[in-house]
Amino acid sequence: MAESAYTDISNLGEFKLIEHLTKSFQPIRKEVLLGIGDDAAVWKPADGLIPVVSTDLLIEGVHFDLSYMPLRHLGYKSIIVNLSDIFAMNAEPVCVTVSIAMSNRFPVEALEELYEGIKQACETYGVDLVGGDTSSARQGLMISVTAMGQVEPDKYVTRKGAKPKDLICVTGDVGAAYAGFLVLDREKSVFLGNPELQPDLNDYDYVVGRQLKPEARVDVVRKLREQGIMPTSMMDISDGVASEIHHLCRQSKTGATIYAHKLPIDPQTVKVAEEFGISATTFGMNGGEDYEMIFTVPIQDFEKVKSWQEISIIGHMTDDANVIQVILENGEAADIEAQGWQHFSQRSS
Amino acid sequence: MAESAYTDISNLGEFKLIEHLTKSFQPIRKEVLLGIGDDAAVWKPADGLIPVVSTDLLIEGVHFDLSYMPLRHLGYKSIIVNLSDIFAMNAEPVCVTVSIAMSNRFPVEALEELYEGIKQACETYGVDLVGGDTSSARQGLMISVTAMGQVEPDKYVTRKGAKPKDLICVTGDVGAAYAGFLVLDREKSVFLGNPELQPDLNDYDYVVGRQLKPEARVDVVRKLREQGIMPTSMMDISDGVASEIHHLCRQSKTGATIYAHKLPIDPQTVKVAEEFGISATTFGMNGGEDYEMIFTVPIQDFEKVKSWQEISIIGHMTDDANVIQVILENGEAADIEAQGWQHFSQRSS
Repeated sequence: MAESAYTDISNLGEFKLIEHLTKSFQPIRKEVLLGIGDDAAVWKPADGLIPVVSTDLLIEGVHFDLSYMPLRHLGYKSIIVNLSDIFAMNAEPVCVTVSIAMSNRFPVEALEELYEGIKQACETYGVDLVGGDTSSARQGLMISVTAMGQVEPDKYVTRKGAKPKDLICVTGDVGAAYAGFLVLDREKSVFLGNPELQPDLNDYDYVVGRQLKPEARVDVVRKLREQGIMPTSMMDISDGVASEIHHLCRQSKTGATIYAHKLPIDPQTVKVAEEFGISATTFGMNGGEDYEMIFTVPIQDFEKVKSWQEISIIGHMTDDANVIQVILENGEAADIEAQGWQHFSQRSS
Repeated sequence: MAESAYTDISNLGEFKLIEHLTKSFQPIRKEVLLGIGDDAAVWKPADGLIPVVSTDLLIEGVHFDLSYMPLRHLGYKSIIVNLSDIFAMNAEPVCVTVSIAMSNRFPVEALEELYEGIKQACETYGVDLVGGDTSSARQGLMISVTAMGQVEPDKYVTRKGAKPKDLICVTGDVGAAYAGFLVLDREKSVFLGNPELQPDLNDYDYVVGRQLKPEARVDVVRKLREQGIMPTSMMDISDGVASEIHHLCRQSKTGATIYAHKLPIDPQTVKVAEEFGISATTFGMNGGEDYEMIFTVPIQDFEKVKSWQEISIIGHMTDDANVIQVILENGEAADIEAQGWQHFSQRSS
């Protein structure tokens, strides 16, 4: 297609661009009194609730690769990763702001795709887009999202309330998003080597979907509330179980023991792990971006959570804050290293 | 100085970096219940108040040039531009989140400078830093700030309440920050041409200060409240009077007449305008980044505002939404073009 088929961003200008991209967004939340288009948005939490706020950056070449991440999925994911943080506080999201910086290599149509995904996430999770900023950048695409939510003043769940003996629970399964990343990255290499070869991802639909279109565990967080289970600590799994358990232990001043065979790992994730010659436990412990929840509950809640299909009890908190360990399949104990995402290892301009 | 004198960001890693940069921030606001270090921050507006939220991006090479903008000033300014938006709603800021993406060319010490400025702004304006994100980027430095504030539910001031005949008021003086930008940019060119020449900015201290270290007009907004003056519309001047009057008119469905000779322009700004062969009126109308307030009040408030030294009445709103004009010094009327910042004119990678 000729380049002229696309609309250059400079044709619209900054103000009209934002207006253009957000005009199809319909207000959903009664809490929002003033949305996009003023110096600030104004909202009023529901009676008795108070605001929570979380923010995240997504940077091209660091957090996503546009050669296999469609812009619509990227828009969707940029909202999900923030809503996940709100749910992880045991709060409910109300509204988001989205700021975008991008080089002029992106035509208006590309941004429309991005905003389609943003809109879809907002509608699915019932939140309003209430503001943002749009700017050019010399290079690349950068998305900064801030999500705001509401919670009862005495019901928000932090990372620091876990006690020794509390059960460590994980929702869904872990490691799949990382498996999806590896598969996509491999197919990209194959494609770059021989553009005639089209990727065949049929056998990897689950793990690829987990990477490209994550969801936030609103269902589990709400069900915990409904069943009267108040986690003593909770966070979402964006950097992997190993990294997150370190956060919970450090802030709660506990140690932890996790059992490798208890980690919920999907068969497709296991298959990918085998293909790459990496142990599935490594995927489950260190794979990021699953956006599942990890939380702790008092042992008294064992009966309530043990039969719940969406929850796996993977271990327990311990007294000794210096020992954060995993019991491997062969019965040996190993220290858990906090291998979060480390984005600073490559020197660039 | 040898490169080894600086600390590479990768030595710390993402989590420790945030912790390191924010450890000297002391909590100020009783409204903030949970600050940095969890999935989200939690705050509780003062009794009877509701949240407002605003967000802004600052991109290297678009919004700032590190060859003359010290990192400490940049940090300060990144907070001010957001607080200014909160004040422009007739609200009071409570807390901010700051997200940074930067290439590895910045050592830890550079980020410390940036956060020193952020801290200074937070302390000066009495707000808490409650969250953020830090990431590498392939190139450049990008700062995304979200500010949250609080306001009485029936006291926030939008851009859409102005009525025909309302007086258009501006705080302080306008055009100075743009004059400062031109002077700094000229000195940079001179320096690049001959590094032996050191810039002499003594004669330009006011305008350079306006560019490098803007302040938010908390004083005027609070005084308006104290004196019982409720603006019918208000916004801060980030893109220039011409651009902002277009926003107010479009949202209020009014026209406007502004008198060029009423524009408050500092003598140093006039001097710079003469040096560059541009009319001072152009500086006053189109110069951005002054972070003064532009607002409208009913004509009944004329007596209250006319004697107030910090306020200039520069014109009035009119019936005809199609006519937004400036009366020039020679008595001629000219249409005001909305020349906001247009960051999308250069094609890049």
